[in-house]
Amino acid sequence: MSRPVNIGIIGMGTVGESVFNIIRDRYDFFEVKIGTPIRIKKICDKKFERKKPEGIDFSLLTTEIQDVINDEEIDIVVELIGGIEPARRIILASLDKGKHVVTANKAVLASHFKEIFKKVKEKKRQVYFEASVCAGIPIIQAINEGLCANEIEYLLGILNGTTNFILTKMEEGKDFKEALREAKERGFAEADPSLDISGEDSVHKLSILSSIIFSTHVGLEVIHKEGIDFVDPTDVKYGMEEFGYKLKLLAIMKKTKEGIELRVCPTFIPKEHPLSDVRDEFNAVYLRGRYTGDMMFYGKGAGGYPAASAVISDIVYLARKVVQGIEEHLPYLDLKRRRLNVKDINDIETRYYVRFTTIDAPGVLAKIAKILGENKVSIASVVQKESSGLSEVPILMLTHRAKEGSFKKAITEIDRLNVVRRKTVFYRVEDERFY
Amino acid sequence: MSRPVNIGIIGMGTVGESVFNIIRDRYDFFEVKIGTPIRIKKICDKKFERKKPEGIDFSLLTTEIQDVINDEEIDIVVELIGGIEPARRIILASLDKGKHVVTANKAVLASHFKEIFKKVKEKKRQVYFEASVCAGIPIIQAINEGLCANEIEYLLGILNGTTNFILTKMEEGKDFKEALREAKERGFAEADPSLDISGEDSVHKLSILSSIIFSTHVGLEVIHKEGIDFVDPTDVKYGMEEFGYKLKLLAIMKKTKEGIELRVCPTFIPKEHPLSDVRDEFNAVYLRGRYTGDMMFYGKGAGGYPAASAVISDIVYLARKVVQGIEEHLPYLDLKRRRLNVKDINDIETRYYVRFTTIDAPGVLAKIAKILGENKVSIASVVQKESSGLSEVPILMLTHRAKEGSFKKAITEIDRLNVVRRKTVFYRVEDERFY
Repeated sequence: MSRPVNIGIIGMGTVGESVFNIIRDRYDFFEVKIGTPIRIKKICDKKFERKKPEGIDFSLLTTEIQDVINDEEIDIVVELIGGIEPARRIILASLDKGKHVVTANKAVLASHFKEIFKKVKEKKRQVYFEASVCAGIPIIQAINEGLCANEIEYLLGILNGTTNFILTKMEEGKDFKEALREAKERGFAEADPSLDISGEDSVHKLSILSSIIFSTHVGLEVIHKEGIDFVDPTDVKYGMEEFGYKLKLLAIMKKTKEGIELRVCPTFIPKEHPLSDVRDEFNAVYLRGRYTGDMMFYGKGAGGYPAASAVISDIVYLARKVVQGIEEHLPYLDLKRRRLNVKDINDIETRYYVRFTTIDAPGVLAKIAKILGENKVSIASVVQKESSGLSEVPILMLTHRAKEGSFKKAITEIDRLNVVRRKTVFYRVEDERFY
Repeated sequence: MSRPVNIGIIGMGTVGESVFNIIRDRYDFFEVKIGTPIRIKKICDKKFERKKPEGIDFSLLTTEIQDVINDEEIDIVVELIGGIEPARRIILASLDKGKHVVTANKAVLASHFKEIFKKVKEKKRQVYFEASVCAGIPIIQAINEGLCANEIEYLLGILNGTTNFILTKMEEGKDFKEALREAKERGFAEADPSLDISGEDSVHKLSILSSIIFSTHVGLEVIHKEGIDFVDPTDVKYGMEEFGYKLKLLAIMKKTKEGIELRVCPTFIPKEHPLSDVRDEFNAVYLRGRYTGDMMFYGKGAGGYPAASAVISDIVYLARKVVQGIEEHLPYLDLKRRRLNVKDINDIETRYYVRFTTIDAPGVLAKIAKILGENKVSIASVVQKESSGLSEVPILMLTHRAKEGSFKKAITEIDRLNVVRRKTVFYRVEDERFY
């Protein structure tokens, strides 16, 4: 029996406590799996006022990050504090001290991928981060190992549980504010949910997945982002009733001949699509491998225990390496310097759902159609709703594939028409039956 | 740069050719991923009359298995011939010669798990077998690594594409024979499909998944098996129309307080269940981890390229170990001798869908209900179909949870009633809303 593998946990929030509890409860199992016990050598948190997990040894506790990083016996540092700093410094300093790192921190990875993995390569240590995307769903391992034979050609992700919960409630008839309130009450949205509803959290996760897929850092700035805060329940309803579509906040990666498309935006998908049944706080990644064809990974994308499940799989993986005494191992990710040809959002081609709000008068549709035609946007389907006595009526439309730049130019022109009463609303549609 | 990792492929059918093609097409990528090239050192097939893959070096070809096993430079033997013998002997002899093995062969694994993994432990080599269950879906890696923190408490699998294709066609109104014919025409069923339709293939795969989950060999003989060859489209139709259920050939593993349930049988699931939308030749595994909660893995479970994708992920994984020169590594699976408490099928408790065929006369239902009651089977719902002028009428029923032994005893008694015209048909129902 080799010596125990020593880990130091920094950050004792929900995920940290869950990691502690699982290691305590399944200690013997992990000893068999790794070939030696996992010993929690130190636990660091800013303050330990909160309730301690049952069975904790108080002598392990510290409020000083340096106590963990400078402990020469610690093999693996588990960073669970979130945010950019001091997480970034903890990760880099741990690598400098020859330790492996496990982190659940999507923000620091998405923002400092290059710096971190340069250090990983230099120090011949590993940073594992399964919990950073979709918590307990082992999607990073799948892309990096199980599917490594494949180029991933297409990926659609529901990567944020908060927004998916809200959109599910809006499908059920609630408006955005009511849905957000329910999400907060049920613990699916934080007090300040702006990172989630703005799409920023999903952008972080798409950046991480794309960086793995392309073996190069895909920065946040190349991912087009739109949130769900302006989603009107009217469109959720019309999308379903008129076209059989559900609105989801999708993270999209698509390889095309002209370049790579990367975006996070509320998007309609057909109700027959496997992602359309991903409800409430669940996450899913739908992807197309060159050899596997289409696949989907589905599960809970948040929560202390699901995230801890991923953190522990990383710990076990690295602990086995520590036991085997591998020093010169290959990097988990070997990032290259290469320029990806990412399309500008105005250069993508997709279908659109459009809702015009116009006066109820003859000739309105003709005017709209003329401008669309002039901009090479062709119409696939139109539904003119009855006016029900109001002075304004909605006109719903599905377009064929059109270039986003031309489409937006057309909408801008249409919105200047005096028959148009409100700013036109549109969503992209991901419907492969029409590709 | 270390020396290349040498592999020998035994069996050059559809999967073998796909493995060859992928390695040829992505040679440079794998070199980066592994740190050294993969070299295909020998390819063995009984006869090489079939069309060779493009770019093959004819000097690699042999018809003698021993040429591969005795080649001292070969690090990894890839066994792709299927069936029990000589696959079993190839795997054991390769381990004896100090080689790692990758196999896609569910039959040999399910039947000789113990013998193979005893040898693995003794020789400190590995046998990897991702392609043996659900082809390209990395479910074995997920259970063994990504989800290793979890006990898997519940698993429902659609593990056989042929039967799922047939049942999907029966949902669309075809009868079993028509559906089977279409499956054969479209290449989703073999000339002799008996292994698939009898449920045997799914039993093999459930045996493998359960052996990983319980770290002990789960033999074929403890898994209750029923095939789909007697499925009547009437029940597929009634299940959907009357109760909102879809019929799937499910592989089920369920931990209960009284023991483990293991079975493969046509089973009704609610149409809201994520598995109910798994159509045609697709496979999926739905599972519940102690910490992750419910998850699903979905994708193509058969075909040369999807299987080759899994074979190659195993090759890459093992090749990295070869490069790192790890000799004394931990076993991928460390099987224990322990007795699992597997329930006899008569001891399980579940709900049932039942179709009685009776004469159209007053008092029939009372007689049936009386016998069910005497056997402690309670009725949740009854639909008596109109007779439409026939001398016999169907009575459809959903039961509450009942013990299988008591339920079957009741059905035997009911089938002896002279008002009952045909053998009663029943299917188990997996509906957690009632648990």
